[in-house]
Amino acid sequence: MLFLVGTGIAYNDIPMRAIEVCKRCTLYAEIYTSISDEAKMKYLSDLFGKEIKILSREDMEEGAKEIVAKAAKADIAILVAGDPLMATTHKILIIEAKKQGISTQILHASSAISAVIGESGLDFYKFGAICTIPKWHDNYKPVSFYEKIERNFSSNLHSLVLLENSPEKGSTLPVPDAIMELEAAESHYKKGIIGESTKIFIMQNIGLPSQKIVATTIKAARSHRSEGVATIIIPVKLSEIEEEAVKSLTVV
Amino acid sequence: MLFLVGTGIAYNDIPMRAIEVCKRCTLYAEIYTSISDEAKMKYLSDLFGKEIKILSREDMEEGAKEIVAKAAKADIAILVAGDPLMATTHKILIIEAKKQGISTQILHASSAISAVIGESGLDFYKFGAICTIPKWHDNYKPVSFYEKIERNFSSNLHSLVLLENSPEKGSTLPVPDAIMELEAAESHYKKGIIGESTKIFIMQNIGLPSQKIVATTIKAARSHRSEGVATIIIPVKLSEIEEEAVKSLTVV
Repeated sequence: MLFLVGTGIAYNDIPMRAIEVCKRCTLYAEIYTSISDEAKMKYLSDLFGKEIKILSREDMEEGAKEIVAKAAKADIAILVAGDPLMATTHKILIIEAKKQGISTQILHASSAISAVIGESGLDFYKFGAICTIPKWHDNYKPVSFYEKIERNFSSNLHSLVLLENSPEKGSTLPVPDAIMELEAAESHYKKGIIGESTKIFIMQNIGLPSQKIVATTIKAARSHRSEGVATIIIPVKLSEIEEEAVKSLTVV
Repeated sequence: MLFLVGTGIAYNDIPMRAIEVCKRCTLYAEIYTSISDEAKMKYLSDLFGKEIKILSREDMEEGAKEIVAKAAKADIAILVAGDPLMATTHKILIIEAKKQGISTQILHASSAISAVIGESGLDFYKFGAICTIPKWHDNYKPVSFYEKIERNFSSNLHSLVLLENSPEKGSTLPVPDAIMELEAAESHYKKGIIGESTKIFIMQNIGLPSQKIVATTIKAARSHRSEGVATIIIPVKLSEIEEEAVKSLTVV
């Protein structure tokens, strides 16, 4: 049996159910699709009383067959950050397991996407499609994320905008870089969605003790400093209850 | 301090972090916004070694002030199913706490919405706005949920369609009732989204041992029988990796 085990957001978000499963499995951890966290791995290894082998990006992408094949002989659990199956990498494992005739089970845990939507105080029914602002490179400066934000905006829906992970740096794309890309995208598409006074929510380290939520403007966000994981929300007009909830949840 | 504690989907999805907090709080459980689960309450009460007082709908809606006021004198935790803050009821508690100057903390746990999206095998970037099909009554037969599905469809986005909870029955709106409402909405709006051969995914009891995922058509779903919690997905055209993931995850 192959278990994909969500470890949730915080280092101690692991569900009881997962503890019971992990104690009887050989353990691996996939840290490529998320911000790595040595303290969390140490906590979990101590909790389960056994070693957790770290899987590299290569192990996951090119070695999916080998990992899955191990589950033919023994129960193995692959620990992932947050809730499993959001990353394509996880789906590839499930597809490979099906090919090899190996049973799989997913154990769910707290999810950054659900937590960010909840902590924002905004109505989850009013969110449109999610997009990601990628890190730009010399010859790769995509602005197509803007199309989803614009479509959400014209449908009166909030936009949840993820920022690309830099696993090696332990953080997501810095907020000022994301704002620069949003403004460049506005210059390209010219739909009038992103201006200096456009409101945005900066959702930092949601679900962690260092959580901070800042409701601000594009102009102020240009120089926003944050560490760790940040997500942006570009809201449309708030309802009365959303206004009140936002005021109760944000720190600024 | 007022803690809003997510207990996740399965009876034993409670995170380690929440256990530590609950052991030092007076405990309440809000079971109005979700399917109630006596076995889960028994498990949690035994785990924490203390009584959990059940809050009625009235306690939550009219008694929010009183509940929050208790948190001025002692640490209290309100247990909720899934991940907190999705329900308006939870936001009202946070707003009330802010008014009374009482600190709050949210503890996240596995979320049905995140789990359903993950287990579907579909790309979370390709989901549009979420809607709910409500239970119809003699003088209340809304079909406006169709507008979101149609907007998602025309934007090439999957629709996640929740079915209204009937807490007293321990289940959501039966799938055949939901299909009847979808077909009535199609007759009203006539946009050609819902036909007999339209594909739908029926996501049953996701995250529970009784989980079942059925990829079928509107026609077949008219007579679909299920118990517990069901959610529907109306997908747009799948990508190749989505096709493969769906085949690996669905049972039919």
